[in-house]
Amino acid sequence: MAAFKYSFANDYSELAHPEILAAMAALGTEQFVGYALDEHCLRAAELIKERFQVPAADVHFASGGTHSNFIVLSSMLRPHEAVIATSLGHIFTHEAGAVEATGHKVCTAAGVDGKLRVQDIQAIVDYHSDEHMVKPKAVYISQSTELGSVYSKAELTALYQCCQANGLYLFVDGARLGAALNSPIGDLSYAEFASLVDAFYVGGTKNGGIYGEAIVICRDELKADFRYILKQKGALLAKGVGMGIQFETFFKGSLYDDLARHANAMGHRLAAGITALGYELLSPIQTNQVFPIFSVELARQLHDLYDFHDWDDYGETCCVRLVASWATPEAMVDMFLADLAELTR
Amino acid sequence: MAAFKYSFANDYSELAHPEILAAMAALGTEQFVGYALDEHCLRAAELIKERFQVPAADVHFASGGTHSNFIVLSSMLRPHEAVIATSLGHIFTHEAGAVEATGHKVCTAAGVDGKLRVQDIQAIVDYHSDEHMVKPKAVYISQSTELGSVYSKAELTALYQCCQANGLYLFVDGARLGAALNSPIGDLSYAEFASLVDAFYVGGTKNGGIYGEAIVICRDELKADFRYILKQKGALLAKGVGMGIQFETFFKGSLYDDLARHANAMGHRLAAGITALGYELLSPIQTNQVFPIFSVELARQLHDLYDFHDWDDYGETCCVRLVASWATPEAMVDMFLADLAELTR
Amino acid sequence: MAAFKYSFANDYSELAHPEILAAMAALGTEQFVGYALDEHCLRAAELIKERFQVPAADVHFASGGTHSNFIVLSSMLRPHEAVIATSLGHIFTHEAGAVEATGHKVCTAAGVDGKLRVQDIQAIVDYHSDEHMVKPKAVYISQSTELGSVYSKAELTALYQCCQANGLYLFVDGARLGAALNSPIGDLSYAEFASLVDAFYVGGTKNGGIYGEAIVICRDELKADFRYILKQKGALLAKGVGMGIQFETFFKGSLYDDLARHANAMGHRLAAGITALGYELLSPIQTNQVFPIFSVELARQLHDLYDFHDWDDYGETCCVRLVASWATPEAMVDMFLADLAELTR
Amino acid sequence: MAAFKYSFANDYSELAHPEILAAMAALGTEQFVGYALDEHCLRAAELIKERFQVPAADVHFASGGTHSNFIVLSSMLRPHEAVIATSLGHIFTHEAGAVEATGHKVCTAAGVDGKLRVQDIQAIVDYHSDEHMVKPKAVYISQSTELGSVYSKAELTALYQCCQANGLYLFVDGARLGAALNSPIGDLSYAEFASLVDAFYVGGTKNGGIYGEAIVICRDELKADFRYILKQKGALLAKGVGMGIQFETFFKGSLYDDLARHANAMGHRLAAGITALGYELLSPIQTNQVFPIFSVELARQLHDLYDFHDWDDYGETCCVRLVASWATPEAMVDMFLADLAELTR
Repeated sequence: MAAFKYSFANDYSELAHPEILAAMAALGTEQFVGYALDEHCLRAAELIKERFQVPAADVHFASGGTHSNFIVLSSMLRPHEAVIATSLGHIFTHEAGAVEATGHKVCTAAGVDGKLRVQDIQAIVDYHSDEHMVKPKAVYISQSTELGSVYSKAELTALYQCCQANGLYLFVDGARLGAALNSPIGDLSYAEFASLVDAFYVGGTKNGGIYGEAIVICRDELKADFRYILKQKGALLAKGVGMGIQFETFFKGSLYDDLARHANAMGHRLAAGITALGYELLSPIQTNQVFPIFSVELARQLHDLYDFHDWDDYGETCCVRLVASWATPEAMVDMFLADLAELTR
Repeated sequence: MAAFKYSFANDYSELAHPEILAAMAALGTEQFVGYALDEHCLRAAELIKERFQVPAADVHFASGGTHSNFIVLSSMLRPHEAVIATSLGHIFTHEAGAVEATGHKVCTAAGVDGKLRVQDIQAIVDYHSDEHMVKPKAVYISQSTELGSVYSKAELTALYQCCQANGLYLFVDGARLGAALNSPIGDLSYAEFASLVDAFYVGGTKNGGIYGEAIVICRDELKADFRYILKQKGALLAKGVGMGIQFETFFKGSLYDDLARHANAMGHRLAAGITALGYELLSPIQTNQVFPIFSVELARQLHDLYDFHDWDDYGETCCVRLVASWATPEAMVDMFLADLAELTR
Repeated sequence: MAAFKYSFANDYSELAHPEILAAMAALGTEQFVGYALDEHCLRAAELIKERFQVPAADVHFASGGTHSNFIVLSSMLRPHEAVIATSLGHIFTHEAGAVEATGHKVCTAAGVDGKLRVQDIQAIVDYHSDEHMVKPKAVYISQSTELGSVYSKAELTALYQCCQANGLYLFVDGARLGAALNSPIGDLSYAEFASLVDAFYVGGTKNGGIYGEAIVICRDELKADFRYILKQKGALLAKGVGMGIQFETFFKGSLYDDLARHANAMGHRLAAGITALGYELLSPIQTNQVFPIFSVELARQLHDLYDFHDWDDYGETCCVRLVASWATPEAMVDMFLADLAELTR
Repeated sequence: MAAFKYSFANDYSELAHPEILAAMAALGTEQFVGYALDEHCLRAAELIKERFQVPAADVHFASGGTHSNFIVLSSMLRPHEAVIATSLGHIFTHEAGAVEATGHKVCTAAGVDGKLRVQDIQAIVDYHSDEHMVKPKAVYISQSTELGSVYSKAELTALYQCCQANGLYLFVDGARLGAALNSPIGDLSYAEFASLVDAFYVGGTKNGGIYGEAIVICRDELKADFRYILKQKGALLAKGVGMGIQFETFFKGSLYDDLARHANAMGHRLAAGITALGYELLSPIQTNQVFPIFSVELARQLHDLYDFHDWDDYGETCCVRLVASWATPEAMVDMFLADLAELTR
């Protein structure tokens, strides 16, 4: 029975943190103006701009990550312009061709450890030399990445300089931005991060929200008419207040960080326990995602006890993905580790 | 101060009915599988199929109405195919070109009282005679319409027969389907309605939900791969359960009807009071929207006291739109009528 | 037998003027660089810039008119932006939704005599007040229009000033630009015309060319990366020289004007003869298209003798369209008039 | 001076074979019905259907290859569906994102020698397992390929069986189909080729035509409304007769084959001479394209004498591409070989 299996499949299995729901409930039947122009959306926007120290930025809300990604990217690009990403990038692999559906090609490089490098970008730019090819105009990265890794201050600085030197916009998918900015190995503050990108979104769904992501447009030339694009793509929700109240709750105090830190701590506890039992990880733990290498047989046995995704298949061994969330109980981590120890003998 | 003005501007000013929020809160930190495959989405789908008596239909969820409209329409149409609507149709006037952004033209007829007629459809089909023009392939209507009117059983039957005779799909925007199916002058049951259309959505946002609409695909040939389209257009929310729990709450008992009936009752109370004071309506009240004709001066005075939208301008007089919602207190209706009586002298 | 019927159906029934074909044949097996970078394309561009006195303009080539229209318009517009046209505009009625297929809505006004007026544009701009609607950003007109009428210098000046005041680009479909600039009632020189628009195309197909239109981009901000758009939309033909040689032939001497003048003269001869027989025209003859009003019975009889299109149906009478071309022999015009006289009795 | 350099850069440097131009000129000022419904288009279509033995196929015309590719592919695919190609495929590398601009992703595999293999297709199909990814629905190959290689009967049979087993349409870019079907090592007849694909185009531009490609739709379910798509994408030229007369001239006798055989013969003569001088080719010569490996210094010296493209860079050596055309004189091949011998010492 599925009900008996605890899931490490992702960080959006539980609906929402109680504070989020309580703040919603507290709105009662008060009336709010529609389409994200209400006081809670405005307050959430202010809080986000303060936290990231981007007073001149524009903040908008959309219900999900795929939606946010293609809305921002399609608003940036002329028809012949393309976006650069790693071949593991969410927009390239797991968004059902959403960016292409807006007319734009995604140009990819393998990258390393889930991260795009300056040389990857430069090689793609250099290759696209004339009008018989698309023209790269934006770079898409995820922070934290699809492999749970984080860009360091040095790495992000180098990427941004490369983007500026090549006339490229840098957009960051922040579905797990909380995890990244609260990573024990991360060295970027909120403000430093925002100063090194042109636009990004702050993930709500994967950090304890019910739905909703906050899009932040830092660069002036990207701000014009963004609400038209939101409306046209179906993201300008009538009851925008439902997203505003969530982000206000996240950022009026430390909740956003608290939830991310808990997820990261549970991820590290998983990683430490797994490596202590002698297993290797695909890459060192950095946030809330752990990618251990198990024998195929062990993975099969663990699937009987827990829900999680297989990541890659190497024949006799395989890599699996375990994701901890803001709601993962320490006890569940310990139970998993105990079961793993038992299966390891 | 805006805080002192009660709003009749629309039916989405208040976040959500308490039962909706309570059902959400009751989910606690239980884990659910993502992307609308959880038990609450499945249960909501079953309840909707039972209510509309369409056991073979497919039910999906999207966060808003504009999104639902272009997702369903773009999934139906080949590149050269177009959709027919009235020139007041929401997709034509108030969705920022969302349908055109998916590549499809909207062909319009004036219609009567917000409603499309068989002769409107036939004229458009007949006019589009060859490959130098688009090919009409779908018909879009709203039930209730943008003017608050409802299609009768005879009207919808005639439209559907016309669509079938011309090889057109009939899609209904049900942002206010609850108000329509509970209209005192409506003669369509849930089952009769669903038997006369190819696809429709059941509005949640305008009937007491926080966000979310339920898309119902009745016609077999329109079902294939619909989840791909949802994902590509950004509508396949990771936490689909947030929409499933709302629709389960709406349809497990009578809540959906109760809320619609209240909105309709408040609309009729407004209309009765206004006409009793000697004012005309643009058209007789049918659901929760009232369109009285006031002098421009009276409208100005009322704007000082209440929020509402101007609909049309006739020089010395104008038509305004008053919308009652599931949450509109009878006392506010009566206060409005008292103020109107006072201003009328 | 179709072979015995002379056609006044349009101005593209005959392949090409002999000088065009001779110039092509004279290229022999000389080698040319591809993609419209050859010497004939460059020379044609220079000649066009000289003729229109737009030394800083960019000139490109595309094979047809529908193609040129949506390429220029889609290169101008961000996703939420729309184009304004008359409801008779070719892009609205007879291009199978080509502009919408690039994602953009066409907003229409009825206009007068096929022409858009300042008040039409202003009303559309004023109506589109917020992000729930598309944002008009370009104006499309045809010169000569779909009714054969021409914009005067005063009219075009007023339109352009209105566009500039409202931040709109003015694009002119010049499928029949030759006819317009050589109209006996026209008062615009090549240079005056070009100084009053942002972009336009010079029609080759309808003025004696085999295929090909010359797109002229006058406004600096519209020039960037236009060749990318051409390539992406399939218009950057490998053997661009085939279009370059045609336009070089048109503009190295007076051929372009000569052909347009002949078409206009034949149109006027038709119109004069028809009105002399007592028939009314839908509007006074201005270029090479004549729209007489005949009885339905007379139109039927004429259809037995000649090919032409019906334009509009008024019950007992109807309007038909007769088009003269660069190749229409005077003798055929006179034969048509004699037959008409005969049928008139 | 560019004028003194002979070009092996491509097979579209010379405008057209004299028979093509003569057939055009012979049309004189005869009138033809527009939009490819004239007698020459119909006759060309019949000849093509006879040659390929596909009596039930539909034949259409478009002005160029990029245009033909995205028109056919976009007419085949629903919004979430994708096309499979090699990473050298023209649609992936050299069409400025034309397919993505119609909303569809191109999924690529490396392939071998420019050719896609059954295992490449199967791996891509297997990887795309759910609605979070695009759904592969079509396969694009070029015959001959971008490397000048040709699919054998066994290879094409295997690909087509794989496509049918996986519900994929097989579309062939035949820009150089003449070269492929006349390759000395090819073993596919016209009829065999056409029986193993769902749709393809027959290249005119690269085989001696001025402009124009003939699109052949073999599979019934792909035929509906194709002229609407042609019109919408700007390919339904008013003077379709200009393309019809070219293809009639190609296929009423042996001209199409004659021109392809000459290009192939010149390619083989180049290849034989180059290998006789001790140079290696990237792959054995199969059609009219030769890819020799030269030292960087030798390539530089040859660039002073001839025009051709560099293909790949290996440090001290590089691969260059030499293309022979229907018009390449044997004397120019021999002069190139003599110069190469001289530079080789």
